[in-house]
Amino acid sequence: MPEESPGFERATSVARSGADSTGPRRTGVYSSQVEEGWDILGNANGGYMLASVARACVAELERPDPVSVTAHFLSPGRPGPTSIEVDVQREGRRFSVASARLLDSEGRQLLSTLGAFSDLSDATGPLQIDAEPPDLPAPDECVGAPPPPESTDADLATAGPSFMNRVDLRLHPDDAGFREGRPSGRARVRGWFGFPDGSAIDTIGLLCVLDALPPTVFNSKLPLAWVPTLEFTAHIRCRPTSGWLACEFTTRVVSSGFLEEDGLVWDSEGKLVAQSRQLALVPRG
Amino acid sequence: MPEESPGFERATSVARSGADSTGPRRTGVYSSQVEEGWDILGNANGGYMLASVARACVAELERPDPVSVTAHFLSPGRPGPTSIEVDVQREGRRFSVASARLLDSEGRQLLSTLGAFSDLSDATGPLQIDAEPPDLPAPDECVGAPPPPESTDADLATAGPSFMNRVDLRLHPDDAGFREGRPSGRARVRGWFGFPDGSAIDTIGLLCVLDALPPTVFNSKLPLAWVPTLEFTAHIRCRPTSGWLACEFTTRVVSSGFLEEDGLVWDSEGKLVAQSRQLALVPRG
Repeated sequence: MPEESPGFERATSVARSGADSTGPRRTGVYSSQVEEGWDILGNANGGYMLASVARACVAELERPDPVSVTAHFLSPGRPGPTSIEVDVQREGRRFSVASARLLDSEGRQLLSTLGAFSDLSDATGPLQIDAEPPDLPAPDECVGAPPPPESTDADLATAGPSFMNRVDLRLHPDDAGFREGRPSGRARVRGWFGFPDGSAIDTIGLLCVLDALPPTVFNSKLPLAWVPTLEFTAHIRCRPTSGWLACEFTTRVVSSGFLEEDGLVWDSEGKLVAQSRQLALVPRG
Repeated sequence: MPEESPGFERATSVARSGADSTGPRRTGVYSSQVEEGWDILGNANGGYMLASVARACVAELERPDPVSVTAHFLSPGRPGPTSIEVDVQREGRRFSVASARLLDSEGRQLLSTLGAFSDLSDATGPLQIDAEPPDLPAPDECVGAPPPPESTDADLATAGPSFMNRVDLRLHPDDAGFREGRPSGRARVRGWFGFPDGSAIDTIGLLCVLDALPPTVFNSKLPLAWVPTLEFTAHIRCRPTSGWLACEFTTRVVSSGFLEEDGLVWDSEGKLVAQSRQLALVPRG
């Protein structure tokens, strides 16, 4: 164990700063921060912000693991101090449910979330599976994640060290060609995920993993340069073992101005550890 | 148009009864009801209750259509008066976001929700699609939905007229054999959905459609008689045209004590109108 806490853990740390028990439900208030360098072209990564919110919920509910977490992204996050209000909805025998809000220092709401939390240390049950981990070349034969296609070196220099330096992404070579203007034609992105400092990924870290890869539509035949997320739901099945995580994100239906992006994340033992879906907008031209 | 309002619309009606503007956000309070006969063995159908909550959000936000709605089911709903608190999170140019809570007459919380609402009257955009409506025989060649497999006629008589009389479900013959102890072996259920009075299905009605079919796992090889829903998210793409809706629900991964159930709903013109995912629990024996 390194003496200093790993980058992700520090960057998503929270501290309870107060409580509000005047309403019908218990509300815990936490101080947190959007740390420098977790952005993509200036806006903090959504999964990174969601991880901080989940950490506050875990603390307030005293349940170690997120099981299902839904987020609506209301405003872009910038580096600086933030606060999190956790509103306890239900404390059950196995699961507790809380809603939460992430606010910046001016009181502007960045995220609104709703989630269920539990203890996944003994997550077991029957197995029936009609899916498998993606067929990925070894991490060293994959491609380090490129910056978003619309960016230029000048943009990146201005934005400072970005999210892509905080995570270690290795894309499947067949899915990385969009960087050079050669999308695969199939709305899918596969790759490995790790933290550069090699720190272990826990169930809160999985929330970051599930929002870390480039949008699937960068590989579609549609000329979409960005697809803002309207809603994101993560389902955490179990705690991952150490090592690289194999990720696959696909989009089946772009229609009526919307698209879904479905994610599957598998650990190094081949277990499904997380599943996600987000609803994104097709920007109007 | 019949003079009496159709069954579903009446059963999910809401009326604004108050507001709370003491907090930082606007909260609207609505009176509603769990009507008799929308239950399965005594517990009100989740999609039915969610439709009432969405109707209150639509009224409070003055946005006619749910786009993304997430629900956590906290307690079973029984017939009787209920109330809905709608907490406005954000009012944007195209989308507004609200959380809401459904409470019974004793103040017990039944549902906690988070959703985005908009106007889908002009939902358009590019189309790229890697999915198609299920291949269903004509409704008259399909099978009326059976009661859940663990029920007996005596149970149903006690429970009174149930949810299955409020909706008109016609299952694919290949997917209906679980009723006689012959599951197909694939965790999938396909069928048509309509309302028995022939009333049109709007975007709020789709929330009911997305939770109306028997669980996919009734067709799996796992001996699961019930699978309580932990979390349910509906994505509404556009307003359906009139006529039968073609539905397909599938489960890919049962693992670690959880399973996901994914739904696709297509209208009579072959357009994808809604998509859903729920996370359900595998009960511990």
